[in-house]
Amino acid sequence: MNSLTGDNSIEARKAGPLLARGVCRHLLQLDFTVIEEFVPERGLRVDVIALGPKGEFWVVECKSSRADFQADSKWQGYLPWCDRYFWAVDGSFPINLLPLETGLILADSYDAEIVRMGPEVKIAPARRKKLTQKFARDAARRLQSYRDPGVAAISYPQA
Amino acid sequence: MNSLTGDNSIEARKAGPLLARGVCRHLLQLDFTVIEEFVPERGLRVDVIALGPKGEFWVVECKSSRADFQADSKWQGYLPWCDRYFWAVDGSFPINLLPLETGLILADSYDAEIVRMGPEVKIAPARRKKLTQKFARDAARRLQSYRDPGVAAISYPQA
Repeated sequence: MNSLTGDNSIEARKAGPLLARGVCRHLLQLDFTVIEEFVPERGLRVDVIALGPKGEFWVVECKSSRADFQADSKWQGYLPWCDRYFWAVDGSFPINLLPLETGLILADSYDAEIVRMGPEVKIAPARRKKLTQKFARDAARRLQSYRDPGVAAISYPQA
Repeated sequence: MNSLTGDNSIEARKAGPLLARGVCRHLLQLDFTVIEEFVPERGLRVDVIALGPKGEFWVVECKSSRADFQADSKWQGYLPWCDRYFWAVDGSFPINLLPLETGLILADSYDAEIVRMGPEVKIAPARRKKLTQKFARDAARRLQSYRDPGVAAISYPQA
Protein backbone atom coordinates (compact mmCIF):
# COMPACT_ATOMS: atom_id res chain seq x y z
CA MET A 1 0.00 0.00 0.00
CA ASN A 2 1.22 3.44 -0.84
CA SER A 3 0.47 6.13 1.71
CA LEU A 4 0.09 8.87 -0.88
CA THR A 5 -2.22 7.12 -3.31
CA GLY A 6 -3.26 3.87 -1.68
CA ASP A 7 -2.11 1.59 -4.49
CA ASN A 8 0.88 0.35 -6.46
CA SER A 9 -0.03 2.03 -9.73
CA ILE A 10 2.27 4.21 -11.77
CA GLU A 11 0.97 7.10 -9.69
CA ALA A 12 2.14 5.35 -6.55
CA ARG A 13 5.59 4.76 -7.98
CA LYS A 14 5.84 8.44 -8.81
CA ALA A 15 5.27 9.34 -5.18
CA GLY A 16 8.94 9.00 -4.13
CA PRO A 17 10.30 11.37 -6.80
CA LEU A 18 7.53 13.86 -6.04
CA LEU A 19 8.48 13.89 -2.36
CA ALA A 20 12.09 14.35 -3.49
CA ARG A 21 11.10 17.42 -5.48
CA GLY A 22 9.51 19.06 -2.44
CA VAL A 23 12.52 18.10 -0.31
CA CYS A 24 14.92 19.58 -2.84
CA ARG A 25 12.97 22.84 -2.98
CA HIS A 26 13.09 23.15 0.78
CA LEU A 27 16.79 22.32 0.91
CA LEU A 28 17.49 25.05 -1.65
CA GLN A 29 15.79 27.55 0.65
CA LEU A 30 18.26 26.43 3.33
CA ASP A 31 21.10 27.03 0.84
CA PHE A 32 21.74 23.32 0.36
CA THR A 33 22.35 22.31 -3.25
CA VAL A 34 21.05 18.92 -4.30
CA ILE A 35 21.43 15.94 -6.59
CA GLU A 36 18.83 13.23 -6.82
CA GLU A 37 19.60 9.55 -7.35
CA PHE A 38 23.24 9.96 -6.40
CA VAL A 39 25.59 6.96 -6.28
CA PRO A 40 28.29 7.53 -3.63
CA GLU A 41 29.84 4.18 -4.48
CA ARG A 42 28.92 1.14 -6.49
CA GLY A 43 25.81 -0.55 -5.11
CA LEU A 44 24.52 2.47 -3.17
CA ARG A 45 22.05 5.01 -4.53
CA VAL A 46 20.60 7.73 -2.34
CA ASP A 47 17.37 9.55 -3.21
CA VAL A 48 18.73 13.02 -2.40
CA ILE A 49 22.19 14.20 -1.43
CA ALA A 50 22.63 17.84 -0.43
CA LEU A 51 25.80 19.91 -0.17
CA GLY A 52 25.56 22.83 2.22
CA PRO A 53 27.38 26.16 2.35
CA LYS A 54 30.04 24.86 4.74
CA GLY A 55 30.74 21.72 2.72
CA GLU A 56 28.47 19.54 4.82
CA PHE A 57 26.53 16.66 3.26
CA TRP A 58 23.01 15.56 4.11
CA VAL A 59 21.34 12.46 2.73
CA VAL A 60 17.56 12.20 2.48
CA GLU A 61 15.71 8.99 1.69
CA CYS A 62 12.16 9.55 0.48
CA LYS A 63 9.64 6.90 1.52
CA SER A 64 6.16 6.96 0.10
CA SER A 65 4.75 4.08 2.13
CA ARG A 66 5.32 1.58 4.90
CA ALA A 67 6.15 -1.07 2.32
CA ASP A 68 8.64 1.23 0.62
CA PHE A 69 10.38 1.79 3.97
CA GLN A 70 10.32 -1.84 5.01
CA ALA A 71 11.81 -2.93 1.69
CA ASP A 72 14.87 -0.72 2.28
CA SER A 73 17.64 -2.88 3.67
CA LYS A 74 20.46 -0.55 2.65
CA TRP A 75 19.87 2.72 4.48
CA GLN A 76 22.46 2.14 7.20
CA GLY A 77 25.02 1.90 4.43
CA TYR A 78 24.29 5.53 3.55
CA LEU A 79 25.24 6.87 7.00
CA PRO A 80 29.03 7.00 6.39
CA TRP A 81 28.33 9.18 3.31
CA CYS A 82 26.69 12.08 5.10
CA ASP A 83 27.02 14.35 8.10
CA ARG A 84 23.29 14.09 8.79
CA TYR A 85 20.72 11.54 7.63
CA PHE A 86 16.98 12.15 7.15
CA TRP A 87 13.87 10.33 6.08
CA ALA A 88 11.32 12.25 4.07
CA VAL A 89 7.71 11.11 4.19
CA ASP A 90 4.28 12.56 3.58
CA GLY A 91 1.70 13.36 6.22
CA SER A 92 0.01 9.95 6.07
CA PHE A 93 3.17 7.93 6.70
CA PRO A 94 3.27 6.01 10.02
CA ILE A 95 6.27 7.90 11.38
CA ASN A 96 6.58 5.75 14.49
CA LEU A 97 8.19 3.16 12.19
CA LEU A 98 11.22 5.40 11.70
CA PRO A 99 14.29 5.12 13.92
CA LEU A 100 14.41 8.00 16.43
CA GLU A 101 18.13 8.55 15.90
CA THR A 102 17.57 9.73 12.31
CA GLY A 103 16.28 13.02 10.94
CA LEU A 104 12.69 13.46 9.79
CA ILE A 105 11.30 15.65 7.03
CA LEU A 106 7.62 16.01 6.22
CA ALA A 107 7.21 16.68 2.52
CA ASP A 108 4.79 16.94 -0.34
CA SER A 109 5.52 17.62 -4.01
CA TYR A 110 5.87 21.36 -3.46
CA ASP A 111 7.76 21.91 -0.25
CA ALA A 112 8.92 20.26 2.92
CA GLU A 113 9.70 20.92 6.55
CA ILE A 114 12.37 19.53 8.81
CA VAL A 115 10.59 18.05 11.81
CA ARG A 116 13.63 16.51 13.49
CA MET A 117 17.29 17.16 12.68
CA GLY A 118 19.39 14.08 12.19
CA PRO A 119 22.30 13.90 14.64
CA GLU A 120 25.61 15.08 13.21
CA VAL A 121 28.26 12.44 12.61
CA LYS A 122 31.02 13.99 10.54
CA ILE A 123 32.29 12.29 7.42
CA ALA A 124 35.98 11.35 7.51
CA PRO A 125 38.06 14.09 5.78
CA ALA A 126 39.45 11.91 2.98
CA ARG A 127 35.98 10.64 2.17
CA ARG A 128 34.54 14.17 2.23
CA LYS A 129 37.12 15.29 -0.30
CA LYS A 130 36.34 12.38 -2.61
CA LEU A 131 32.59 12.82 -2.14
CA THR A 132 32.71 16.56 -2.88
CA GLN A 133 34.61 15.85 -6.08
CA LYS A 134 32.16 13.14 -7.17
CA PHE A 135 29.19 15.38 -6.35
CA ALA A 136 30.78 18.17 -8.42
CA ARG A 137 31.51 15.97 -11.42
CA ASP A 138 28.14 14.21 -11.39
CA ALA A 139 26.23 17.50 -11.15
CA ALA A 140 28.26 19.09 -13.96
CA ARG A 141 27.90 16.05 -16.22
CA ARG A 142 24.14 16.00 -15.75
CA LEU A 143 23.94 19.76 -16.24
CA GLN A 144 25.82 19.50 -19.52
CA SER A 145 23.37 16.85 -20.77
CA TYR A 146 20.49 19.28 -20.12
CA ARG A 147 22.26 22.21 -21.76
CA ASP A 148 23.55 20.30 -24.78
CA PRO A 149 21.50 17.22 -25.70
CA GLY A 150 24.16 16.49 -28.33
CA VAL A 151 26.47 15.10 -25.67
CA ALA A 152 24.28 12.02 -25.33
CA ALA A 153 26.09 10.65 -28.38
CA ILE A 154 29.54 11.22 -26.89
CA SER A 155 31.25 8.36 -25.16
CA TYR A 156 33.53 9.15 -22.25
CA PRO A 157 35.28 7.20 -19.53
CA GLN A 158 32.63 6.14 -16.98
CA ALA A 159 33.36 6.45 -13.28
CA MET B 1 35.50 42.04 -36.87
CA ASN B 2 34.47 38.58 -35.87
CA SER B 3 36.56 35.76 -37.28
CA LEU B 4 33.64 33.34 -37.47
CA THR B 5 31.12 35.56 -39.19
CA GLY B 6 32.92 38.76 -40.11
CA ASP B 7 30.59 41.14 -38.31
CA ASN B 8 29.25 42.24 -34.96
CA SER B 9 25.70 41.01 -35.47
CA ILE B 10 23.79 38.80 -33.07
CA GLU B 11 25.28 35.86 -34.99
CA ALA B 12 28.75 37.17 -34.20
CA ARG B 13 27.96 37.48 -30.53
CA LYS B 14 26.76 33.88 -30.49
CA ALA B 15 30.15 32.71 -31.71
CA GLY B 16 31.77 32.56 -28.27
CA PRO B 17 29.10 30.33 -26.71
CA LEU B 18 29.15 28.08 -29.79
CA LEU B 19 32.91 27.62 -29.45
CA ALA B 20 32.31 26.87 -25.76
CA ARG B 21 29.86 24.14 -26.71
CA GLY B 22 32.44 22.42 -28.91
CA VAL B 23 35.08 22.82 -26.21
CA CYS B 24 32.79 21.31 -23.57
CA ARG B 25 32.01 18.33 -25.78
CA HIS B 26 35.68 17.65 -26.30
CA LEU B 27 36.45 18.06 -22.60
CA LEU B 28 33.76 15.52 -21.76
CA GLN B 29 35.48 13.02 -24.04
CA LEU B 30 38.61 13.60 -21.95
CA ASP B 31 36.52 12.92 -18.80
CA PHE B 32 36.55 16.57 -17.75
CA THR B 33 33.21 17.84 -16.47
CA VAL B 34 32.37 21.43 -17.26
CA ILE B 35 30.49 24.54 -16.24
CA GLU B 36 30.16 27.55 -18.51
CA GLU B 37 30.17 31.16 -17.31
CA PHE B 38 31.60 30.27 -13.94
CA VAL B 39 32.41 32.96 -11.36
CA PRO B 40 35.35 31.85 -9.19
CA GLU B 41 35.12 35.06 -7.21
CA ARG B 42 33.35 38.38 -7.51
CA GLY B 43 34.42 40.25 -10.63
CA LEU B 44 35.80 37.24 -12.49
CA ARG B 45 33.81 35.13 -14.93
CA VAL B 46 35.44 32.39 -16.97
CA ASP B 47 33.90 31.00 -20.16
CA VAL B 48 34.53 27.35 -19.29
CA ILE B 49 35.87 25.71 -16.16
CA ALA B 50 36.52 21.98 -16.24
CA LEU B 51 37.03 19.55 -13.36
CA GLY B 52 39.02 16.47 -14.26
CA PRO B 53 39.05 12.95 -12.81
CA LYS B 54 41.94 13.73 -10.47
CA GLY B 55 40.41 16.92 -9.14
CA GLU B 56 42.37 19.15 -11.52
CA PHE B 57 40.87 22.36 -12.89
CA TRP B 58 41.29 23.75 -16.38
CA VAL B 59 40.02 27.14 -17.49
CA VAL B 60 39.22 27.83 -21.14
CA GLU B 61 38.52 31.30 -22.53
CA CYS B 62 36.74 31.23 -25.89
CA LYS B 63 37.66 34.02 -28.28
CA SER B 64 35.73 34.48 -31.46
CA SER B 65 37.82 37.30 -32.92
CA ARG B 66 40.91 39.46 -32.57
CA ALA B 67 38.78 42.24 -31.07
CA ASP B 68 37.24 39.84 -28.58
CA PHE B 69 40.73 38.77 -27.47
CA GLN B 70 42.12 42.28 -27.33
CA ALA B 71 39.19 43.50 -25.24
CA ASP B 72 40.01 40.93 -22.54
CA SER B 73 42.04 42.63 -19.84
CA LYS B 74 41.21 40.10 -17.13
CA TRP B 75 42.57 36.77 -18.30
CA GLN B 76 45.70 36.80 -16.15
CA GLY B 77 43.41 37.05 -13.17
CA TYR B 78 42.04 33.61 -14.08
CA LEU B 79 45.41 31.85 -13.83
CA PRO B 80 45.37 31.35 -10.04
CA TRP B 81 42.02 29.58 -10.40
CA CYS B 82 43.20 26.71 -12.58
CA ASP B 83 45.95 24.13 -12.96
CA ARG B 84 46.08 24.75 -16.72
CA TYR B 85 44.84 27.66 -18.81
CA PHE B 86 43.71 27.51 -22.45
CA TRP B 87 42.42 29.75 -25.17
CA ALA B 88 39.85 28.30 -27.54
CA VAL B 89 39.55 29.83 -31.00
CA ASP B 90 38.27 28.83 -34.40
CA GLY B 91 40.39 28.07 -37.44
CA SER B 92 40.37 31.65 -38.75
CA PHE B 93 41.69 33.25 -35.57
CA PRO B 94 45.16 34.83 -35.79
CA ILE B 95 46.75 32.50 -33.25
CA ASN B 96 50.09 34.30 -33.24
CA LEU B 97 48.36 36.90 -31.05
CA LEU B 98 48.07 34.39 -28.21
CA PRO B 99 50.76 34.13 -25.52
CA LEU B 100 52.91 31.03 -26.07
CA GLU B 101 52.90 30.13 -22.39
CA THR B 102 49.16 29.36 -22.49
CA GLY B 103 47.27 26.37 -23.84
CA LEU B 104 45.55 26.43 -27.22
CA ILE B 105 42.38 24.67 -28.34
CA LEU B 106 40.98 24.79 -31.86
CA ALA B 107 37.21 24.53 -31.75
CA ASP B 108 34.00 24.81 -33.69
CA SER B 109 30.44 24.39 -32.44
CA TYR B 110 30.61 20.61 -32.54
CA ASP B 111 33.99 19.56 -31.27
CA ALA B 112 37.48 20.76 -30.46
CA GLU B 113 41.08 19.67 -30.35
CA ILE B 114 43.86 20.55 -27.94
CA VAL B 115 46.72 21.94 -30.04
CA ARG B 116 48.98 22.98 -27.17
CA MET B 117 48.69 21.99 -23.52
CA GLY B 118 48.85 24.84 -21.08
CA PRO B 119 51.71 24.49 -18.61
CA GLU B 120 50.68 23.09 -15.25
CA VAL B 121 50.78 25.46 -12.29
CA LYS B 122 48.98 23.82 -9.39
CA ILE B 123 46.30 25.66 -7.49
CA ALA B 124 47.05 26.16 -3.79
CA PRO B 125 45.36 23.39 -1.72
CA ALA B 126 43.06 25.66 0.32
CA ARG B 127 41.89 27.38 -2.86
CA ARG B 128 41.34 24.04 -4.62
CA LYS B 129 39.12 22.88 -1.78
CA LYS B 130 37.05 26.08 -1.90
CA LEU B 131 36.90 25.99 -5.70
CA THR B 132 35.78 22.35 -5.81
CA GLN B 133 33.02 23.15 -3.37
CA LYS B 134 31.86 26.20 -5.34
CA PHE B 135 31.96 24.25 -8.61
CA ALA B 136 29.88 21.50 -6.96
CA ARG B 137 27.28 23.88 -5.56
CA ASP B 138 26.99 25.99 -8.70
CA ALA B 139 26.58 22.92 -10.92
CA ALA B 140 23.95 21.38 -8.65
CA ARG B 141 22.02 24.66 -8.33
CA ARG B 142 21.90 25.07 -12.10
CA LEU B 143 20.97 21.40 -12.58
CA GLN B 144 18.06 21.78 -10.17
CA SER B 145 16.76 24.77 -12.13
CA TYR B 146 16.69 22.64 -15.28
CA ARG B 147 15.03 19.69 -13.56
CA ASP B 148 12.48 21.72 -11.63
CA PRO B 149 11.60 25.08 -13.21
CA GLY B 150 9.48 25.76 -10.11
CA VAL B 151 12.60 26.61 -8.12
CA ALA B 152 12.93 29.88 -10.02
CA ALA B 153 10.35 31.32 -7.65
CA ILE B 154 12.28 30.23 -4.54
CA SER B 155 14.55 32.69 -2.86
CA TYR B 156 17.64 31.38 -1.15
CA PRO B 157 20.78 32.87 0.32
CA GLN B 158 23.00 33.97 -2.56
CA ALA B 159 26.70 33.17 -2.47
